[in-house]
Amino acid sequence: MNNLENKRHSLAHLLAAAVLELYPETKNTIGPAIDNGFYYDFEFASPITDKDLPKIEKKMREIIKSWKAFSHKEIEIKEVLKIYEANPYKQELIKELADKGEKITLYTCDKFTDLCRGGHIENPAKDISPSSWKLSRIAGAYWRGDEKNKMLTRIYGLAFETKEELENYEKKLEEAKSRDHKKLGRELDLFLIDEEVGKGLPMWTPKGTIIKFALEKYTRDLETKYGYDHVSTPYLGSEKLYKTSGHLDHYKKNMYAPIDMDGDIFYLRPMACPHHIKMLQRKPLSYRDLPVRYAEIADYNRYEKSGELMGMIRLRKFQLTDAHIFVTPSGLKEEFKNVCRLIQEGMQGLGLSDSVNYRFSKRDPKNKEKYYPDDTLWEKAEGVMKEALDEIGLKYTEATDEAAFYGPKLDVQAENANGKEDTLFTAQIDFLLPEKFDINYTAEDGSKQRVVMIHRSAIGALERTFAFLIEHYAGAFPLWLSPVQIAILPVSDKFNEYAEKIKNLLCDTGLRATLDTSNESLGKKVRAVKMQKTPYWVVIGEKEVTANILNLESRDRGIIGTLSIQETIKKLLEETKLNS
Amino acid sequence: MNNLENKRHSLAHLLAAAVLELYPETKNTIGPAIDNGFYYDFEFASPITDKDLPKIEKKMREIIKSWKAFSHKEIEIKEVLKIYEANPYKQELIKELADKGEKITLYTCDKFTDLCRGGHIENPAKDISPSSWKLSRIAGAYWRGDEKNKMLTRIYGLAFETKEELENYEKKLEEAKSRDHKKLGRELDLFLIDEEVGKGLPMWTPKGTIIKFALEKYTRDLETKYGYDHVSTPYLGSEKLYKTSGHLDHYKKNMYAPIDMDGDIFYLRPMACPHHIKMLQRKPLSYRDLPVRYAEIADYNRYEKSGELMGMIRLRKFQLTDAHIFVTPSGLKEEFKNVCRLIQEGMQGLGLSDSVNYRFSKRDPKNKEKYYPDDTLWEKAEGVMKEALDEIGLKYTEATDEAAFYGPKLDVQAENANGKEDTLFTAQIDFLLPEKFDINYTAEDGSKQRVVMIHRSAIGALERTFAFLIEHYAGAFPLWLSPVQIAILPVSDKFNEYAEKIKNLLCDTGLRATLDTSNESLGKKVRAVKMQKTPYWVVIGEKEVTANILNLESRDRGIIGTLSIQETIKKLLEETKLNS
Repeated sequence: MNNLENKRHSLAHLLAAAVLELYPETKNTIGPAIDNGFYYDFEFASPITDKDLPKIEKKMREIIKSWKAFSHKEIEIKEVLKIYEANPYKQELIKELADKGEKITLYTCDKFTDLCRGGHIENPAKDISPSSWKLSRIAGAYWRGDEKNKMLTRIYGLAFETKEELENYEKKLEEAKSRDHKKLGRELDLFLIDEEVGKGLPMWTPKGTIIKFALEKYTRDLETKYGYDHVSTPYLGSEKLYKTSGHLDHYKKNMYAPIDMDGDIFYLRPMACPHHIKMLQRKPLSYRDLPVRYAEIADYNRYEKSGELMGMIRLRKFQLTDAHIFVTPSGLKEEFKNVCRLIQEGMQGLGLSDSVNYRFSKRDPKNKEKYYPDDTLWEKAEGVMKEALDEIGLKYTEATDEAAFYGPKLDVQAENANGKEDTLFTAQIDFLLPEKFDINYTAEDGSKQRVVMIHRSAIGALERTFAFLIEHYAGAFPLWLSPVQIAILPVSDKFNEYAEKIKNLLCDTGLRATLDTSNESLGKKVRAVKMQKTPYWVVIGEKEVTANILNLESRDRGIIGTLSIQETIKKLLEETKLNS
Repeated sequence: MNNLENKRHSLAHLLAAAVLELYPETKNTIGPAIDNGFYYDFEFASPITDKDLPKIEKKMREIIKSWKAFSHKEIEIKEVLKIYEANPYKQELIKELADKGEKITLYTCDKFTDLCRGGHIENPAKDISPSSWKLSRIAGAYWRGDEKNKMLTRIYGLAFETKEELENYEKKLEEAKSRDHKKLGRELDLFLIDEEVGKGLPMWTPKGTIIKFALEKYTRDLETKYGYDHVSTPYLGSEKLYKTSGHLDHYKKNMYAPIDMDGDIFYLRPMACPHHIKMLQRKPLSYRDLPVRYAEIADYNRYEKSGELMGMIRLRKFQLTDAHIFVTPSGLKEEFKNVCRLIQEGMQGLGLSDSVNYRFSKRDPKNKEKYYPDDTLWEKAEGVMKEALDEIGLKYTEATDEAAFYGPKLDVQAENANGKEDTLFTAQIDFLLPEKFDINYTAEDGSKQRVVMIHRSAIGALERTFAFLIEHYAGAFPLWLSPVQIAILPVSDKFNEYAEKIKNLLCDTGLRATLDTSNESLGKKVRAVKMQKTPYWVVIGEKEVTANILNLESRDRGIIGTLSIQETIKKLLEETKLNS
């Protein structure tokens, strides 16, 4: 344990000491150090709220003055059970320690003693700067994280080495909150999740749908450039299909219950691979046809518990920018490079190159029972993937025991606004499904050969990537993704008609322009445009009408200056084309 | 009964006479006249096949020579039951007639007698031209159409006034068969229904998907022009949603069984109206916001029995070019006109103006229990719809008792290749859902008022309209819908490289060009292009390379002539823009 962790752990003891002084009826349980501070879980006799935190923090600051050193002693089970006879949580912990034959120790500082393994700071009063920590919030937490157990009250605290570090962290947290895609999604009216429609089933508003269509077009244009064919397949599949694919053996817990259609049993599909395989198998396959690349923005369904749903990140239904590539073994490496190049170009166009990193996820050879059992295939697949990555010079980290059941993966990793790293999407090599579905092609010598499959996404799930883009840009999207690209703001009613003409001229070129003819003041109109993070706006008044010019203002670069209408259109269209 | 119907009915008797002479063990049941001839259902002692039809027809032509007149007599029940004592089908019919107190008559011609109500031709031998009828096919048919009954053998015959009419009918039938969307869908590789993926769940191939995307873009551009916003909502909805909407009361038999998601009950949605209503209700609504028009190419799910599925026409899942409009009562008429204009423009762009007709479907005031009970609302809705239709001069027929439960409809009717008229899609006025979901807006005077809803499709379900377009164009789509727009056919390998350049030049402009570098002869390459109904092709040989020209040929207009590459591109792009 390092010093900061010891400090956080000591503060957890201090928190428990303060709580027990203020609320002697409370049962204290456990309190560890965590990433940004510490917490302690309590069973209170009567509930407390965030409003009680200042009182508890004040008590902590009082007590700490006399916390000069921790002492500890080993203790007999009988004795310690007696000490905690009114606390069933501690009793449970003690019995477990005893069962494992571990020593039981008590740590004491000043007047407070707790069951503990140690790991504290030497002199809390001296070594913990009062301005480097604070209590932050309370939350409910099941005893030992199990929803069958009692719900306890968890008190969180933040703690860092210095005051500056604490302030920086809080600033970052504030910034992350303001970027939160759920908050911005509401403020910018981009999507909604209506509980009556269904938890985990988002709806894209008109503005959100403009972005969705832009992302769809972006993906499909990219895929066309890289030689993909687009297909369209249903979000349902028969039981037989998912028996053959093995999903019902290995993936059933993520799937919904079957649906009976007049005796035919169907599943809401968890993945689209079987559909694309059946599409491929509609006609005989020759080496001349390969590689075949089927892309689809495919509907996926996943069984998720209510509690695990999160904004546009964890959903019960989403659309993956999906593709399946069927290739000869000798063409595999080149094709995997092609996939990596597409992914890199895709991330670059979205402005995310610096925000994602790549992880090469391999099997753990010591943990083989988790993986498809064929060492030769695994070595080949991982070898090909590594060569492909190295040959195109993609920077990546390696991760062991993170592969898929059937083959190695390239994971595209991204940090969300809260600093948590998540897998945005993956590309995978698969020798298994071609076996299960018996996918053959006729080789040059007339023999039947087995294809290899690549599963890959282009830019991830539309919903998750959308959430990530909202947080990345804090809602201030680049022009091509902006639902409204330019706002026309007449100074008063008198100029509405002229402003309407300007708006129509812009819209006719395909630009997305809006006109604000409300009775609000110009100041209010400009504030609204800024709140909505509209990239450009023009104010229309006497001067503009007389001189037939536009005074262009930018969200990101302030006043651009005076332009003719045609110059404005040209400028905006050029900027739009940069990424669309 | 007119003369042709009498003739067809007489031929049914003749068929039964011939069958009973050839197969005396047979039990004859009933045999009516139908639209294109006649049939008769039999229980044969041992099965017959299409191969037996010539023998039966020959026997009919033999017998008819002595069929000079029908005679009939009334008969006592006891007596007739005795006659048919070995025939349970006739016994069932006789008992029913007796129960109803109807007279029972037997009709005889020459040596054959049948239980019958009459309606025959006077002198079959003289009045029926031998070349105006023929037997056509056999099929299975349940006794009285009930699948719980025994399967009988039905023999069909064609019969018309003259030889010419029969031949015309057969020609039309042949033509319809060659236009059948299931057959062309396979031949042109446009879609497939794989039983392992699921019956009633079609997949669009790469070529079909190009057409699907073209139809989607066509629809959305049209809707944008008419002031619609696009939204995107999930194909699932909670139980509560469909309780509120009334679908679970009135529409449950068309819905799939519920799905349990961790205690939340969901349905695969049969319609998207509740989703669009929830979208609307995310913020307060003012008269200034109306009309609100939400359009979506929406996923729909319908419970269909296996036996009722048909190609791309009757499916278990489809995508409707759907929209819901929310409007003030005073704005309703103008908005309904707007809807009609959009539909007319939509049909025109698809080249279907002459192939569809419009039906104004009203409530039957004598059959009120089928409809939402509010006379005032019905009169208002039907009045507004009629005025709107008349004011824009849309030609329509009126149909009584064809309205929706909650309001009148405008049905867009189309005949498929087999001459059967089907509803392609509808536009409906609805006062009911605004009540059920309590959809209000703030009027100019500050009062709360109820909106009116219009449900409408733009071009129907993508799948059904696709099927209709395939049959309408017999697969020879207009340029903008063609999956391949121009094929490049090098005379030999020598010209492949140059041909590839031409292909790339064409593709760079967004045209869909393919290159045939197979080792086949030029003749075979051209035949393949014609089979695939490709609108244009160019042959690349010595002359074309030297002179840097293209010799453009058209599927519809033969040789177009010699053009430069730029001229070819310009010509094709202009033709593409006509409808896209």
